[in-house]
Amino acid sequence: MQFASLDDICAALRDLTDVDQKAMAAARARDAVLTKPPGALGRLEEIAIWYCGWRGDARPEVTAPQIIVFAGNHGVTARGVSAFPADVTEQMVLNFQAGGAAVNQLARTVGARMDVHALALDVPTADFTEGPAMNDAEFLQAVQTGWDAVDTQADLLVTGEMGIGNTTSAAAIAHALYGGQSTDWVGRGTGVDESGLALKAAVVAEGLAANPQAEGDGLEALRCLGGRELAAMAGAILRARHLRIPVILDGFICTAAAACLHAANPRALGHAMAGHKSAEGAHQALLERIGKAPLLDLGMRLGEGSGAALAISVVKAALACHSGMATFAEAGVSDG
Amino acid sequence: MQFASLDDICAALRDLTDVDQKAMAAARARDAVLTKPPGALGRLEEIAIWYCGWRGDARPEVTAPQIIVFAGNHGVTARGVSAFPADVTEQMVLNFQAGGAAVNQLARTVGARMDVHALALDVPTADFTEGPAMNDAEFLQAVQTGWDAVDTQADLLVTGEMGIGNTTSAAAIAHALYGGQSTDWVGRGTGVDESGLALKAAVVAEGLAANPQAEGDGLEALRCLGGRELAAMAGAILRARHLRIPVILDGFICTAAAACLHAANPRALGHAMAGHKSAEGAHQALLERIGKAPLLDLGMRLGEGSGAALAISVVKAALACHSGMATFAEAGVSDG
Repeated sequence: MQFASLDDICAALRDLTDVDQKAMAAARARDAVLTKPPGALGRLEEIAIWYCGWRGDARPEVTAPQIIVFAGNHGVTARGVSAFPADVTEQMVLNFQAGGAAVNQLARTVGARMDVHALALDVPTADFTEGPAMNDAEFLQAVQTGWDAVDTQADLLVTGEMGIGNTTSAAAIAHALYGGQSTDWVGRGTGVDESGLALKAAVVAEGLAANPQAEGDGLEALRCLGGRELAAMAGAILRARHLRIPVILDGFICTAAAACLHAANPRALGHAMAGHKSAEGAHQALLERIGKAPLLDLGMRLGEGSGAALAISVVKAALACHSGMATFAEAGVSDG
Repeated sequence: MQFASLDDICAALRDLTDVDQKAMAAARARDAVLTKPPGALGRLEEIAIWYCGWRGDARPEVTAPQIIVFAGNHGVTARGVSAFPADVTEQMVLNFQAGGAAVNQLARTVGARMDVHALALDVPTADFTEGPAMNDAEFLQAVQTGWDAVDTQADLLVTGEMGIGNTTSAAAIAHALYGGQSTDWVGRGTGVDESGLALKAAVVAEGLAANPQAEGDGLEALRCLGGRELAAMAGAILRARHLRIPVILDGFICTAAAACLHAANPRALGHAMAGHKSAEGAHQALLERIGKAPLLDLGMRLGEGSGAALAISVVKAALACHSGMATFAEAGVSDG
């Protein structure tokens, strides 16, 4: 699909695939006869049945997970909202490409393919306290990059990000979609101090004031307050839905991008699970707004897709159990 | 080591290895210069530094994890405390050996060696409501089996168990070590109903009344109220300490066995982390008594070492990040 207008994205958000009820029922029936007490694998069982439904297969394994890291630069960094200089975005892209970042090690550990897309790093988005971060063409191109980045043969997707300043962008999106005070949604990001936190809250409030059309509108929030990497993540998550590839959401920024899809269509994230609860303060509240309970809670707050990448191991394990275990009949075990 | 008397076990519990402070400091120094904001990997950083300390290596990876599943039968099942018949212990051992159980799939997923030890399944322990579950010789032999089962070349250990009736045994141990009411420590196990729960509480109270020497005494609690598989787990965890192999504790039953070591020597579990929080009600309270915070909370309550086996992936990921990431200097990234 080529996105020529915002209407094209709206259409892609309306015309969604759905879970395969038959495969899901067959998976549930299989789960009930595996050699374990009913429910004893806890959330692993829920994950397996959900995954089977989206893949349309009652007994799959996860063999081709893909992690895509999108990077973008933010005009709002000129306001001093980050503890790191904006140059770090590009430096970290080189680190991803050289295999030296945390997400590279995690991808290796969980057996995932990893791709990196740097989005026009030399053209930061506009400072959203002065108007929309992106014009329509810039926004469409970023969404398109995400849409095209998904491997059609992948069987699980993680979208990660790198972008100095993007916790401020994500906080502004959350504030636009869910209201409250700007202070409710800002956190320490990569490590700002008290005064940095107050500055972020002020910048977020200014951002919403400068972009009133973003209020309660998923796509406008993403275009006016997001960054290219957030728009690309949303594009990739939407593409995965069309391909029936289950998605594991990462932390605060990834969830803010996903929340824009959810605001546009509350059904849009049925194929997504929350990989972890970030230590970034407002992440839990954001997850609650999209109705997701995180799989992991390890105090991570790195971005890059790192928390979701680690959660790939949980989803792989869930399907390995579901599809690999013997049934009571096969094993000759009394079922109580 | 050959355990010829309870005194030999006491000696092994006194004469403990300790963490390598120098390796731990070097690991902490390395962690501080990796390409991430300080602390952004959350508990993965804590795990990595702890692991480095125990292995005496500032930059190791986890390449040889071992999962050992011990199985035993319990005389107390004659009291009707389990939803499953005692025959299931042996049937599940065959399932482990054939590769059909949940823990087999998890071992495969995390790349762990798995061993199964069935301990005298045709000779259940005595019903502990009538006196000690094991005499000294039986207890020593079970501890020895666990001690000998550890692969000296392993670099991470998980001990799991199978034994119909053993949540009752674990509850009795917890009650003996930590007091309270017997109802505080019993849970639904593999799925007993309300009346089954009341029966378990009564049986636990009877067990402590019949074995007053178990009160507050780790080794006596393990001998008088435990089962062979619990004693073997304790033996394996103690051996791992002597070999400086870090251990991931599993759920309620594994933690009860470990708690006996902790009661005998509060330093005995420094090399152990809690892999997960079981859905078995009293597990969290038991973890608090030994001062451990679980890595995962996925509603699992299967035993077999399954929760800890899944947590191997977290520990592997932690060390992959710690040892594989580039430093700020190596990657040419500005460190804020």
